[in-house]
Amino acid sequence: MRAKVQTPACIINGEQGDSLSSLDRGLLYGDGIFETIAIQQGQPQYWQEHLERLKLGCEILGLSGLDHALLKTEVEKLIDVDAQCIVKIIITRGVGGRGYKSTQQSLTRIIQKFPWTEYPESYTQSGIDVTLCEFRLAQQSKLAQIKHLNRLEQVLARSEWADEYQEGLVCDQEDHIIEATSSNVFFEMASCLVTPELTGCGVAGVLRNKVINYCNNNDIQLSIREFSLSEISDIQGMFVCNSVIGIWPVKCFSNLTLPKTAIIKKLMSIFNT
Amino acid sequence: MRAKVQTPACIINGEQGDSLSSLDRGLLYGDGIFETIAIQQGQPQYWQEHLERLKLGCEILGLSGLDHALLKTEVEKLIDVDAQCIVKIIITRGVGGRGYKSTQQSLTRIIQKFPWTEYPESYTQSGIDVTLCEFRLAQQSKLAQIKHLNRLEQVLARSEWADEYQEGLVCDQEDHIIEATSSNVFFEMASCLVTPELTGCGVAGVLRNKVINYCNNNDIQLSIREFSLSEISDIQGMFVCNSVIGIWPVKCFSNLTLPKTAIIKKLMSIFNT
Repeated sequence: MRAKVQTPACIINGEQGDSLSSLDRGLLYGDGIFETIAIQQGQPQYWQEHLERLKLGCEILGLSGLDHALLKTEVEKLIDVDAQCIVKIIITRGVGGRGYKSTQQSLTRIIQKFPWTEYPESYTQSGIDVTLCEFRLAQQSKLAQIKHLNRLEQVLARSEWADEYQEGLVCDQEDHIIEATSSNVFFEMASCLVTPELTGCGVAGVLRNKVINYCNNNDIQLSIREFSLSEISDIQGMFVCNSVIGIWPVKCFSNLTLPKTAIIKKLMSIFNT
Repeated sequence: MRAKVQTPACIINGEQGDSLSSLDRGLLYGDGIFETIAIQQGQPQYWQEHLERLKLGCEILGLSGLDHALLKTEVEKLIDVDAQCIVKIIITRGVGGRGYKSTQQSLTRIIQKFPWTEYPESYTQSGIDVTLCEFRLAQQSKLAQIKHLNRLEQVLARSEWADEYQEGLVCDQEDHIIEATSSNVFFEMASCLVTPELTGCGVAGVLRNKVINYCNNNDIQLSIREFSLSEISDIQGMFVCNSVIGIWPVKCFSNLTLPKTAIIKKLMSIFNT
């Protein structure tokens, strides 16, 4: 059975092809993790950081036996002819029977190639429009930060709008802003940056970590802490980021119109290459 | 690519075969629902009840276009030669691209057949041993009760023991007992039954609903309410149930040794056929 939409190049467990056993635990339970990686001039961007997050995911889910060198080789096999594209890596616990109990088996490695997505220049020039999702994230510290395959919360949050916004902020059950549906968020307040802590939920994005490190090394004051929705009226700037889109300044959120501040411009000059 | 384990008979979107596009949103995000159905004498047990839960799942996840009659026909196609087996139905939002946003597409219907599992007679005769999982369920009212494909919490809870127990009870973050990893739980206290309410998390099992209805119609006092872990020392009996195993009395939980009470025997005589 082939997908009806245009099928990207795909390698599963080292073999070309995009079909998977319907007994794979990735399908049955979302029992796995993934990474979405930007490829520029044929090179995976932030490879080491994506790999570190994969390793953390494997550790937390108890997935053993991921061969990092083999994974890199397989990714390179897929991208050597493409200057610019997107690669998604999915690692699942592999094929299993009926039941949550995991029997010893081999992980499934799926590597998919997608065309590069061109976004309007206005997203970086003037900024994007962001909505507030009604959907609230559950707090589950055991699964926070890693990029696992249980993403129904993000699917439901994203289903709240069509194309009138470019992103949506999502809160936890206690009205703390956590992240955007597919990116992390930073606020500027009194010339300091704030990004939500992700101890209870949220994905610790690769670019979020790069931005945090950059700020720490370059005297840009940054605080990682709980951020209440009620604080939003005090912000002077906002941006969202992930390793594929880079940094998008936010120009409009709720009734706020926000400028592209000097700090945001500085970070964009570093990370939007 | 074929699975290395024994492959059950499987129909995907009406076609025989067990392979699925790796772009299916069931794999990418756990974006779908499932049912596990006991087949006896070639007949799906509790078909209407399973179908109702599928419909509820479709409604909550916004999955439209499930053809119930077609689904029944396809299930029957799989089981007509088998007197006793297990059928698993998985419905996903279908093949999609990269990104949480759902574009209009056809649902994927997966129907898998598994051999019937024979459990030791002692499970029903003397009862089972049950542990308390350390893992705590997150509270997400939007996804409670339905049987969606985001099951990492159950996988992690189930990974806490090997075969020394037959089930494990799982609490929410506030130490309310919610369910067992793959069944629902009932307690007996002062000749009344109590089963946890599932407003924040947990799966509303088909057999749980049947037991509740039976009690209501037969003057067996039953309360559906929050059940704190600290209440456990006051119980006189316990059983777990799901539509495949029926009712299993619990003989041992933590430091408690529990009898198979008259009420439990009565319910077993009704539902363990």
